Amino acid sequence: MISVVILGAGNVATHLFKGFEKTDEVSVVQWYNRSLAAIKPYNHLVAITDDLKALKDADVYIIAVSDDVISELSSQLPFDDKLVVHTSGSASVYDLDMKLKRGVLYPLQSFSKAAELDFANVPICIETIDKACFPILKKLAKSLGSPIKRINSDQRRVLHLAAVFVNNFTNQLYRIGHEITESEGAEFDLLKPLILETANKIQDMSPFKAQTGPAKRNDKKTIKKHLKQLENEHHKAVYKLLTESIQRTHGRKKL
Amino acid sequence: MISVVILGAGNVATHLFKGFEKTDEVSVVQWYNRSLAAIKPYNHLVAITDDLKALKDADVYIIAVSDDVISELSSQLPFDDKLVVHTSGSASVYDLDMKLKRGVLYPLQSFSKAAELDFANVPICIETIDKACFPILKKLAKSLGSPIKRINSDQRRVLHLAAVFVNNFTNQLYRIGHEITESEGAEFDLLKPLILETANKIQDMSPFKAQTGPAKRNDKKTIKKHLKQLENEHHKAVYKLLTESIQRTHGRKKL
Repeated sequence: MISVVILGAGNVATHLFKGFEKTDEVSVVQWYNRSLAAIKPYNHLVAITDDLKALKDADVYIIAVSDDVISELSSQLPFDDKLVVHTSGSASVYDLDMKLKRGVLYPLQSFSKAAELDFANVPICIETIDKACFPILKKLAKSLGSPIKRINSDQRRVLHLAAVFVNNFTNQLYRIGHEITESEGAEFDLLKPLILETANKIQDMSPFKAQTGPAKRNDKKTIKKHLKQLENEHHKAVYKLLTESIQRTHGRKKL
Repeated sequence: MISVVILGAGNVATHLFKGFEKTDEVSVVQWYNRSLAAIKPYNHLVAITDDLKALKDADVYIIAVSDDVISELSSQLPFDDKLVVHTSGSASVYDLDMKLKRGVLYPLQSFSKAAELDFANVPICIETIDKACFPILKKLAKSLGSPIKRINSDQRRVLHLAAVFVNNFTNQLYRIGHEITESEGAEFDLLKPLILETANKIQDMSPFKAQTGPAKRNDKKTIKKHLKQLENEHHKAVYKLLTESIQRTHGRKKL
């Protein structure tokens, strides 16, 4: 049985708590947050505290707070030489105070507070400074049912950056699709099956092979028609840049 | 029983043929293509021809060819006043010869030749010039199990344009994610669950509400870090423009 203390009360902290609650291999012995209000609803399930000096003994301390405060929080921990990990995609493992055994448990997924999360769909990327710390973090991640990958800092940072492209930026393309359809009273809902299919397709085909459409075909007539059709200058700029991007990838001439 | 002749041998034509083959409500009485080779494999299932003058009588003729040749092909049809539809998202219904009863059956999905297609995930957008032609096209689309939507030309064109954003451009973001991860020896596969979740999320939440990440939070430190991290100037340009796009949508200041 691995004992864990969670620090922080955001989406990642909350989902980790709920995930660990479901396993027999991990016991969350305490939940810390700067303000008790956020974790009070879990009072009946776990000991809660807002006092770092009152932290209980545990095998692993998981700091799931915003990047900016990881360093400060870790330096305030009232002990040395215990295993402390953060969960950030972009913060360095060295942001943790050097008096500690340091590591990272980076769950590569988009966390919403409301939605139930199946950790089978959340790859957990593990980094440790000391190799000896890896097995216990692996056990921890495995207990959630997550796929596990050992990675280094550069790989983690690059995954976090790529995640911005495939998650935040993709979602913004959905938003633009929403704006475009609504401007003509068409239903965005009609695009939802296509959106799912686009994501499904690359599960077992490379995005390179999966590409279709006017930019890939270098269908100048349609591209011109689309640019004329777009009234919003900003939408036009996105159309141009991503068309150019596709043509770079597929060896077509520029616009 | 609705009798149909299919003209063309691309992905849409082929999937429509296979779809109609599964229903009892539609009979494909003939399949035409300029070159017989492409449809020869279906010889045992349907009468095939490469001769427009030999076209059989049918309730509906479905022209599923590239946009450029719809007009020409429709003007070569050796009959007047029959119901002829094309399947294009961007061609006008008026591209069909005016001697005909004209309509459009636009399946809003990404068609790959190989993959099996479930028409339940393919909304079919129907347009007709003459209202009287709508019911038979509706029956045709329903027989495939597709959701059906009556739309006008403007709505169809706008859906086709929005589809480029949510399908082709989104896929290009996946491609950039692939390039970025590979450059550091990280695994693109680790991003696949996130890609699926991003598409799933907006099935019942607006893309506006679903947005997260540094651009939405106006987290300048992370944005700066990411821009520094990106070595490829083109990736940088995409990062900047889509970050700006998110900040426009969410009322943040520009970069």
